[in-house]
Amino acid sequence: MGRLKLSNAEFEKRLQTLRGHMEEEGFEAYLLTSGVNIFYYSHFYHLVTERPAALLVEPDGKPVFMGPLLEADHLRLQTSLIGEVYTYLDYPGETHPMELFAQWLTERGLGKARIGADNPAGAGGAMGYQGPKLYELLGEAELVADGRFVWNQRLVKTPGELELIEESAKWGNLAHTLLQEYTRPGLYDMEVRLMATLEATSAMRRALGPRYESVKGRAVSAGFRGQVGWKSAIPHSIDINRPIREGDVLVTGAGADIDGYGSELERTMVVGAPTPKMERMFKAMCRSQEAAAEALKPGNTCADVDKAASKVLREMGYGDLVRHHTGHGIGLEGHEPPYLDHGNPEPLRPGMVVSLEPGIYELGYAGFRHSDTLVVTEDGCRWITYYPRDLESLTIQ
Amino acid sequence: MGRLKLSNAEFEKRLQTLRGHMEEEGFEAYLLTSGVNIFYYSHFYHLVTERPAALLVEPDGKPVFMGPLLEADHLRLQTSLIGEVYTYLDYPGETHPMELFAQWLTERGLGKARIGADNPAGAGGAMGYQGPKLYELLGEAELVADGRFVWNQRLVKTPGELELIEESAKWGNLAHTLLQEYTRPGLYDMEVRLMATLEATSAMRRALGPRYESVKGRAVSAGFRGQVGWKSAIPHSIDINRPIREGDVLVTGAGADIDGYGSELERTMVVGAPTPKMERMFKAMCRSQEAAAEALKPGNTCADVDKAASKVLREMGYGDLVRHHTGHGIGLEGHEPPYLDHGNPEPLRPGMVVSLEPGIYELGYAGFRHSDTLVVTEDGCRWITYYPRDLESLTIQ
Repeated sequence: MGRLKLSNAEFEKRLQTLRGHMEEEGFEAYLLTSGVNIFYYSHFYHLVTERPAALLVEPDGKPVFMGPLLEADHLRLQTSLIGEVYTYLDYPGETHPMELFAQWLTERGLGKARIGADNPAGAGGAMGYQGPKLYELLGEAELVADGRFVWNQRLVKTPGELELIEESAKWGNLAHTLLQEYTRPGLYDMEVRLMATLEATSAMRRALGPRYESVKGRAVSAGFRGQVGWKSAIPHSIDINRPIREGDVLVTGAGADIDGYGSELERTMVVGAPTPKMERMFKAMCRSQEAAAEALKPGNTCADVDKAASKVLREMGYGDLVRHHTGHGIGLEGHEPPYLDHGNPEPLRPGMVVSLEPGIYELGYAGFRHSDTLVVTEDGCRWITYYPRDLESLTIQ
Repeated sequence: MGRLKLSNAEFEKRLQTLRGHMEEEGFEAYLLTSGVNIFYYSHFYHLVTERPAALLVEPDGKPVFMGPLLEADHLRLQTSLIGEVYTYLDYPGETHPMELFAQWLTERGLGKARIGADNPAGAGGAMGYQGPKLYELLGEAELVADGRFVWNQRLVKTPGELELIEESAKWGNLAHTLLQEYTRPGLYDMEVRLMATLEATSAMRRALGPRYESVKGRAVSAGFRGQVGWKSAIPHSIDINRPIREGDVLVTGAGADIDGYGSELERTMVVGAPTPKMERMFKAMCRSQEAAAEALKPGNTCADVDKAASKVLREMGYGDLVRHHTGHGIGLEGHEPPYLDHGNPEPLRPGMVVSLEPGIYELGYAGFRHSDTLVVTEDGCRWITYYPRDLESLTIQ
């Protein structure tokens, strides 16, 4: 049976790697303030708001959490990997949380330390957050902007992470199958999304039972994000103010949350018989995606994959209809490095997990894009998502 | 009939106010990079990703957009308020988007200008974004961190914004009614959420027809966010790995998107007959919320509201069970200033729209919180949400 959670050993290994880096760089501590980075090193996930939160990693001992009181009990339920917890009642408080962060760091002997950080300001500034910068408050310490290191560590997935992404693809496949079954003229795309998401969620929760808990609050879903009819030509369309109609091209999306990890599955579907023009554009998009997969292998760079995909589109006469690059990394976040972009010289390494999703978009007509999740292997790549890709299978009769 | 969109005149007035501020501060231009701020001045909403985007406001003419190519067509469909558009193909590109931003600003004669900005770095750094800081690339210009001004402008809602928030409350009320009707032992809270959300979405789309389009991609929804049974004691619980049971305390939430604006409605419900302890805790929470509403008026500060609410909870013996402050502003974002916090001296002003949601949380037992959306008036406040607040109405039989 598929694994549904990473082991504590995996998190401890991550910390060990981070601590090796700290030693190399002469960091006496490391401060993580992005919600996803906090999760990556602690298995504690929280809803990011205006309230600053941080995970402090020192050379020894369990990581320390600093954040709002409302997360204190939550944290103990989710993880045994965090040690001491410092809390403030709420933001902005009589004493600003960032001043407390500075005070707590000083109490721990770090007031004059060299500290690596994903964000030396101490908070990202969501939801109207205002406050002093941590590096200003800790004037005698040295806070080093070092986010690139964490991203490098997250870039290559371990076998444990891969299992979660593969499990995610399975439930995404169910949700997408239901989405296709429910799609019909007269329904709003949001209704089809919710019908498919409801049925897939019910099935997934009953199949996995109490072993499963969603980290992000959405177990599994499928939908269209407004890419319906002529609005399929808008890659991030969001919504359309009419129901699905006969003759529409649709671009879909599906995925599931397995211990915080996701996968991406997107398909171009046609409602009713496809026209010859639709067939041509569909075929070009598919060939482009296949060319990207052929280029997705160690020895190539991220840029090579993007170039291989767009070469096909140019050669087939659709170069002018490209609106974005070929894909992105996927794991704890829906988009993450490495970006498969003609300007990204990053070499491909086994264990990188990416979406391949070259698309073409003709304004006023339609857009065509499949997206699949693939993993780079020792000698090429492997498709993780496995939903049918051919036009016949994706035609709604 | 309720208004579903702000007029262009309202956006032009916002720009006028911003330009007055620019003149006062000697800013030759103003740069907005937060997705919501871009919308606030342009009526263009986009999915924020790793790709930097910005709206440039100059002393005259329509605002200028700089961002990824995939938003160019999208923008023209959504708004007539934006003038010139500069795009890059994608991130990171052969030339980094931030270098292009610097180049475009220089081409517009702003290379040595004094420029106000919500974020002088030019990008927030989502999804592993890495790049040079705009203020470093524009070394001869002066980029002034001025986000507080925009927040001050957004703080007090106009009559037009209020109409949208009131319309949102209406559909949130429908979704919550359905949520309560569908709640029963044996269902996962996520299923009840999706059933209620589906039915409310269907009704709302058919009621409003083609006049309505969702800005954020979620028309209307209601749910629990994992605050079920003993996990109702975790304010941001996210999920629980079992179905709803007889005897559970539940904390809900509902709202709808009307031209980007929202409202907040949360209720504590009990499945089956409430125990005397539940009744006592429910009553304390309600009284605390009522005390907050009494304190919500011009002449008082945000701190006064928080203090009035927590005074009741302390006097009724529940001071130790408080886990967060009393409320937050609401409008284009789910949480926004002003924060109703004992450390916030901001005076209340007519037109501020806030949630009132003092809560008490006993770990291992249950949590109790209602949240309502209210607007500060000339001489007090007015409740915008109107769902029943009493325990009898909120008991699932």
